[in-house]
Amino acid sequence: MHDTRPDHAAPAMPQGSIDALYDVVGARRDVRREFLPDALPRALLTRILNAAHMGPSVGLMQPWRFIMISDEGTRAKLAASFEAANAAAMGTYSGERAATYASLKLSALQDAPTLIAVTTEVDAKRGHGLGRASWPEMAQFSTVAAIQNLWLAARVEGVGVGWVSILDKDDVRDALGLPDGVAPTAILCVGYVKRFEPRPDLEAAGWEERLSLADVVVAETYDGPSYVDE
Amino acid sequence: MHDTRPDHAAPAMPQGSIDALYDVVGARRDVRREFLPDALPRALLTRILNAAHMGPSVGLMQPWRFIMISDEGTRAKLAASFEAANAAAMGTYSGERAATYASLKLSALQDAPTLIAVTTEVDAKRGHGLGRASWPEMAQFSTVAAIQNLWLAARVEGVGVGWVSILDKDDVRDALGLPDGVAPTAILCVGYVKRFEPRPDLEAAGWEERLSLADVVVAETYDGPSYVDE
Repeated sequence: MHDTRPDHAAPAMPQGSIDALYDVVGARRDVRREFLPDALPRALLTRILNAAHMGPSVGLMQPWRFIMISDEGTRAKLAASFEAANAAAMGTYSGERAATYASLKLSALQDAPTLIAVTTEVDAKRGHGLGRASWPEMAQFSTVAAIQNLWLAARVEGVGVGWVSILDKDDVRDALGLPDGVAPTAILCVGYVKRFEPRPDLEAAGWEERLSLADVVVAETYDGPSYVDE
Repeated sequence: MHDTRPDHAAPAMPQGSIDALYDVVGARRDVRREFLPDALPRALLTRILNAAHMGPSVGLMQPWRFIMISDEGTRAKLAASFEAANAAAMGTYSGERAATYASLKLSALQDAPTLIAVTTEVDAKRGHGLGRASWPEMAQFSTVAAIQNLWLAARVEGVGVGWVSILDKDDVRDALGLPDGVAPTAILCVGYVKRFEPRPDLEAAGWEERLSLADVVVAETYDGPSYVDE
């Protein structure tokens, strides 16, 4: 590869690290099927949680909290909320799409050995408001970036993660005892899995197709020409 | 390391890949200072954009669009929006905190050779609404997860990224020509940098302190006991 990097620029990491990062990005999956019941070692969970905690946050507010759920009552409440929300969603489809929707496995709340609820203290004093005055969503966005760190760390460790959003947020608040000012950001199903599929389940099932990179990168303005030659 | 992984579980990636992932997660910084003016090679930009495009998205909706900005007029509009929002924010602090705020460099909009605006088509038909009915924020959350992929890919490639949110969103919409139904999610400053600092700038400047992992991981409920022994 011809390196055009200026002499006084910080270097790239070693090629092996570059390759590893792209490998894990490409191999990460949103897993809902074939979790194994075996508990994850505490040391492994701590490593992937620490990766999350190294995530970026607006104003260094670190608004996230990770709630590790093993209580079967909490699991049952979340699973019941999924069942109701999923039934309501199913009612909005018809014909072939309804049949496809019904065939999808969209929750592993009752299968995965570990559930992690991730919350955001949206108006925390921590960070002193920096970067949030005109863009308050940045608090939850920070938490999402942390979750993506966790997701990639889990994948490289051979651990599956499935993010379930077919839930009533008020049910989630009740199940976890969230105080005012704290938003539920994600419910994650986490555990060893039998396999990581080569393609996303939703692509394999024909639910939606992948766009090409050229479809999503444009020059200068929203309706500008494609920027990528593929 | 004692491996308790069940025999029939998908394996971890090689230890070198695990180490590389944690290295890049720990070394990633939100960079605002000391960008170099040199243009990034198109092939490098394409690699990090492709990492973003491999990100997770609710319903496989892929709601993101990446707008590559080189037009100086657009850059000037964004910089002017930052100046106004930053002056307004500065007025909300007093005393030592105001002095610290004034000392921070919070934008590289006029320094970084590449600006990338990232947008979200929040009500896109793509994905057929799956996972968004009860949690509409999932569209923008998908875009944020994609951005974190880009951020880590950039870091491993030795490229700095700074996410600027001290902006008026309506100014951003106007500068980029965003249609109704498309939200501005992020404005990123991207380029080679002289160095990556060992600590976040906001920590080094005394703006905010890092929490320990034990502060942010709890068991069972929001006010549950700490889960992590450190």
